[in-house]
Amino acid sequence: MSLQNQRIVLASRPRGQVVPENFRLESVAVPELAEGQLLVRNDWLSLDPYMRGRMDDVRSYVAPQALDDVMGGGTAGEVIASRHPGFAIGDKVVGRLGWQHYAVTDGAGLNKVDASRIPLSAYLGCVGMPGVTAWYGLTQIIAPKAGETVVVSAASGAVGSVVGQLAKARGCRVVGVAGGPDKCRAVVEEFGFDACIDYKAGRLRDDLAAATPQGIDGYFENTGGEVLDLVLARMNAFGRIAVCGLIAGYDGQPIPVNNIRAILVSRLKVQGFIISEHPEFWPTALAELGEAVASGRLRYRETVAQGLASAPEALIGLLKGRNFGKQLVRLG
Amino acid sequence: MSLQNQRIVLASRPRGQVVPENFRLESVAVPELAEGQLLVRNDWLSLDPYMRGRMDDVRSYVAPQALDDVMGGGTAGEVIASRHPGFAIGDKVVGRLGWQHYAVTDGAGLNKVDASRIPLSAYLGCVGMPGVTAWYGLTQIIAPKAGETVVVSAASGAVGSVVGQLAKARGCRVVGVAGGPDKCRAVVEEFGFDACIDYKAGRLRDDLAAATPQGIDGYFENTGGEVLDLVLARMNAFGRIAVCGLIAGYDGQPIPVNNIRAILVSRLKVQGFIISEHPEFWPTALAELGEAVASGRLRYRETVAQGLASAPEALIGLLKGRNFGKQLVRLG
Repeated sequence: MSLQNQRIVLASRPRGQVVPENFRLESVAVPELAEGQLLVRNDWLSLDPYMRGRMDDVRSYVAPQALDDVMGGGTAGEVIASRHPGFAIGDKVVGRLGWQHYAVTDGAGLNKVDASRIPLSAYLGCVGMPGVTAWYGLTQIIAPKAGETVVVSAASGAVGSVVGQLAKARGCRVVGVAGGPDKCRAVVEEFGFDACIDYKAGRLRDDLAAATPQGIDGYFENTGGEVLDLVLARMNAFGRIAVCGLIAGYDGQPIPVNNIRAILVSRLKVQGFIISEHPEFWPTALAELGEAVASGRLRYRETVAQGLASAPEALIGLLKGRNFGKQLVRLG
Repeated sequence: MSLQNQRIVLASRPRGQVVPENFRLESVAVPELAEGQLLVRNDWLSLDPYMRGRMDDVRSYVAPQALDDVMGGGTAGEVIASRHPGFAIGDKVVGRLGWQHYAVTDGAGLNKVDASRIPLSAYLGCVGMPGVTAWYGLTQIIAPKAGETVVVSAASGAVGSVVGQLAKARGCRVVGVAGGPDKCRAVVEEFGFDACIDYKAGRLRDDLAAATPQGIDGYFENTGGEVLDLVLARMNAFGRIAVCGLIAGYDGQPIPVNNIRAILVSRLKVQGFIISEHPEFWPTALAELGEAVASGRLRYRETVAQGLASAPEALIGLLKGRNFGKQLVRLG
């Protein structure tokens, strides 16, 4: 084949904040297919906060991204050539084929999906890893009862927006935290939260108190930093905190927490999790999420960057909270 | 009766550290017994870190101690008069009769104990609330498997020393943290820990790394502060932290924690608990603890202050870590 593949590799590790120079765009020939392989055209690339962690060469919950290797990442696309009995040309597939236009694969970790009822890109968002993350943290760690108050940080994001909608469907009072009036408005009006607090407005403590008059029973932690401290101070006895992401720390700043004593005083359970380690829950979660999206009950937003070359800046923006909902790159 | 009762009441709330002037010794007549009441002579008073929290008038897991009321606290003693069908003169009883020589009570919350196989004072220590606290946090939250590494702060204390011995009995590697070479030596030689780190030696990070070459799977938190941060950085995946006490914060200083990100990175469960809220576990725990003490397998130390008037200074010393093992006041 004479097909050329554009791809982005990790050129250097960030010192603190990620900069465009940490990435390099390359063009290489797509290799011929061997027996048992297939060729996928990636139409969508998912950008996610965990990518920042992988760019460092430190102990974390995922192996570091190797230098000069294609940046890893979730993708959705279409099979355009196949010498694999399980995949045919035209199949829509979701997998982890990385920051590139084309990928030759043996199909391991690749899943065929039905893009007729659910848009293909949604399989990277609320019917994919972010959605299952939301589902697991809410139902398996927070496990809220109807009438309880659940707070969600990064509430307009791919995970947070789903957490809130699932919690509302379970009869909870749901309060989001997001950055800026536009995001907060959407969290309430589009996603149906009871309230949303703008952490950029400078009144976080007072606004949180006003929005959670009965205290807080469950907290879905997506950000870290000041919100966590203020939430800790308002947690009710036997509250649960699911720790999913700590974006505020991805650039290496420490995230000091002062109210740690609340864990004892309020007998809290604080639990971190990585959704890829709980594969047994994915079918149940995806069934609920897929049905909710297909029926229109579960709403979502996407921020779409156009073209592979825009991916580095889009990731940088994601880490700074510039996206609104699921951050994607349209590769096609 | 002309019997005079000496008692200590809370005279004022501390501003920061507890001072002797926060207490007042009073002498009052012991009232006559009504039908259904009994009179107990308290021989032993238990001093415990939670008492500091009750001295503040703030939201906590226990109601504040009222001003001018007898200081609350666990006691062990003997029935010396009774108009109650369930108690006879000479019965040994454990309860919460407070900082005083005598108490008239209707028997609610009072338990008769067998002081023939187990010394009466031990019912305030490892066969009482501190022992059950150790048992619950270890077996129900940390739930260690044989071969795992368990770290215990305040390892020479009433709770910590029991945690370590129970963990050793379950096949764990057990590392204590205590203040000073004498305590550390006793933690290893008397209580059988595999190692004990002197946090006052100024090498906490290095010593902890050396003592936990396989990382840390379980941590029993009795202190707060720097130890917690360093432990967090060494926790293995899916580690468990039982948060039992945070002495470092009882005087009102914040206890900032910097390594909170470890909760996510290592998928930790961090859980606070108050042992009085889990009465269903007490019989099982006390059966194991009582048998272990009676047979000599479970060892313990006591620091005994002599006389009711010494209780304020003894509590202040406890909060500063001056005690060694269970802090008691002998009232008799």
